[in-house]
Amino acid sequence: MLVISKREVERRVLNITSEMARRNLDALYLVSAANIAYVTNFFHIPTERPIAAVVLSSGEKILIVPRLELEHAEKYSYADRVLSYDEYPDEKHPMLVIADYLRGLGLEGKRIGFDVDGYAHIYGYRGPRLSEVLKASYSYERDLIENMRLVKSEEEIRLLRESAKWASLAHRLLQEYTRPGLYEDEVSLRASMDATMAMARALKGIYRPAGWASGARAGFRGQVGKHSYYPHSLTIHAIIKKGDVLVTGATALVSGYGAELERTMIVGEPSEEQRRFFKLMLEARRIALESIKPGVKCSDVDRNVRRFFKEKDLMKYWRHHTGHGIGLEYHEAPFFDIGDNRTLEEGMVMTVEPGIYVENLGGFRHSDTIVVTKDGFEFITHYPEELEDLIIPA
Amino acid sequence: MLVISKREVERRVLNITSEMARRNLDALYLVSAANIAYVTNFFHIPTERPIAAVVLSSGEKILIVPRLELEHAEKYSYADRVLSYDEYPDEKHPMLVIADYLRGLGLEGKRIGFDVDGYAHIYGYRGPRLSEVLKASYSYERDLIENMRLVKSEEEIRLLRESAKWASLAHRLLQEYTRPGLYEDEVSLRASMDATMAMARALKGIYRPAGWASGARAGFRGQVGKHSYYPHSLTIHAIIKKGDVLVTGATALVSGYGAELERTMIVGEPSEEQRRFFKLMLEARRIALESIKPGVKCSDVDRNVRRFFKEKDLMKYWRHHTGHGIGLEYHEAPFFDIGDNRTLEEGMVMTVEPGIYVENLGGFRHSDTIVVTKDGFEFITHYPEELEDLIIPA
Repeated sequence: MLVISKREVERRVLNITSEMARRNLDALYLVSAANIAYVTNFFHIPTERPIAAVVLSSGEKILIVPRLELEHAEKYSYADRVLSYDEYPDEKHPMLVIADYLRGLGLEGKRIGFDVDGYAHIYGYRGPRLSEVLKASYSYERDLIENMRLVKSEEEIRLLRESAKWASLAHRLLQEYTRPGLYEDEVSLRASMDATMAMARALKGIYRPAGWASGARAGFRGQVGKHSYYPHSLTIHAIIKKGDVLVTGATALVSGYGAELERTMIVGEPSEEQRRFFKLMLEARRIALESIKPGVKCSDVDRNVRRFFKEKDLMKYWRHHTGHGIGLEYHEAPFFDIGDNRTLEEGMVMTVEPGIYVENLGGFRHSDTIVVTKDGFEFITHYPEELEDLIIPA
Repeated sequence: MLVISKREVERRVLNITSEMARRNLDALYLVSAANIAYVTNFFHIPTERPIAAVVLSSGEKILIVPRLELEHAEKYSYADRVLSYDEYPDEKHPMLVIADYLRGLGLEGKRIGFDVDGYAHIYGYRGPRLSEVLKASYSYERDLIENMRLVKSEEEIRLLRESAKWASLAHRLLQEYTRPGLYEDEVSLRASMDATMAMARALKGIYRPAGWASGARAGFRGQVGKHSYYPHSLTIHAIIKKGDVLVTGATALVSGYGAELERTMIVGEPSEEQRRFFKLMLEARRIALESIKPGVKCSDVDRNVRRFFKEKDLMKYWRHHTGHGIGLEYHEAPFFDIGDNRTLEEGMVMTVEPGIYVENLGGFRHSDTIVVTKDGFEFITHYPEELEDLIIPA
């Protein structure tokens, strides 16, 4: 089965409770959706209704959910117990009910670590901090689970590799379907639909999509032609034309895990300028990749890339760091950034995606997902990277 | 143009600054993506890189963004000024750069209201509170903008009505494409693709999708057959079969605004039991709708529905309140919930969606978006509601 096993979650919880012991915590209170998934394998749609997972020092995992998620959580989560409150905002605020439940678990006056003190401001949520409604000794322990999530297990890497395959399919279809005159959306929606249906038919019953959207997707998100200059463009219903630079993105959600694959493509014969920036982007990428091995600081990978940008007088085209961790969240710690001095370890999964953004021309960025190995790294994503393989006939 | 006008944003800011004066605030600091859109009309992909909007008492609107969003924000936002920091985490944490900018705006020692003190925990973000890195007198003023967002302007209602039309198209296609033997995803992806392309072709250039995903969408999200029992199901690649209850959802994003349309459909001739619960759901919905007019408390609308549930001995099938506000966010205040005593006013836009969830049978829920009028309400969404119009031939 392409899902995280109960045994894997038990291993995680064992690590968590031994770290809780070191930090002198009686309970860990978690509301981040990814942290909840990490400790209970429950995936949900975050709304204004708080959902929390509580890990006790005994290792017991308790989910607290709104009434509408009770049976869903009982069916799909690995929590030992699922408790529920009626609604948000309700006559009694859910945070007060959660406090009652924690009191019932004997946590009043105890030492509680949290990722968020209460609940995040999702949709129309407002409410008190947990520390305002339950007397206890509180500490911010967001790093406790973050530190564990930095290094991926074999099961997690397997899901990410599976994700990468379907992301590749979506991207391949995207490339095949792209032609001048088409809307970016009809290309991306058709590629995403076809890849998703292939994935559903191949994997139905042995994995869980575990997200709002099902399956695989690939698209441009507005990064078409000159508009590819904006690294976080939103869709603009661009019509693809000869001479365009295209920056793509593809992923597929496999039981909560998604790898990232992005490519720069050119529509028709590339111009000299396009060839030049494409080549520089590949060089920056090579420098990043060559820097990756256990023991190297994340910051040094980014520093090496920035040095290249400076040497080649490219800093005016620089817009973002070299990459980020990826797993249960599409961006997560650590970061290939001059400010992140964490050391690379075997099993860390990262994106590598230095980008060059040229006004009135476009963006140049590939992104690949890699896993750090004993000696260096391996690609999780597999897709051609050379310009000649990424030209759209026009 | 189907976009919020600059004049509308100026009106909003005028209301905000006069409320700031009443509350004795020198600046309002906002990081919620919807609040940022409300005061600057800038739409972005929230990541680990903080983005903040600052409204000064003068009415000046300043956006602070990561480097990769600078030109994007300059091009698309109505901010008076866009400032940027390099990256997250960087050698100097972005929250320190933001503090420097606020210092430069003369806000040190002044009275700053915020929606979030610092930045939310999005993706791998961690960092200090703003109040830890800039000396000022702080207060939690999330309700300031929330209160204004409760009542929609004519421009906002126009966008929501436009959204509803394309949601209807997506839903109509969903209904037409649904047949026994098909995967839920091929129906929903095809309907979403076709509706999105119709929308893009009809509206290209006169609106902005303003979201990750483009256009219109409709689907089942796993609420197929017995699995429709889970109100917040996630996609399960269900194969549709005769006898299934289907619970749908459709929307379309028009310049940041989306209406909600949901229907219960039955595949083939409905059973007596299905007919009975469908009828009860329609009655609960009628009770909710008949309660809606200015001056009524939101709580009373939900209370009337719950009274009906109790009278008919349906509380074992009850899973959630009657509805929620909708606009820039898919759920927002106020709520048709016994705990929300705010009074309905002309211009409030709400969903109406009491639901009945029967184990081993399925869920029964329609959702419509309505706007409160002087005398009662008007539908924003328009779609058949009777069972005979929602039977899938099989």
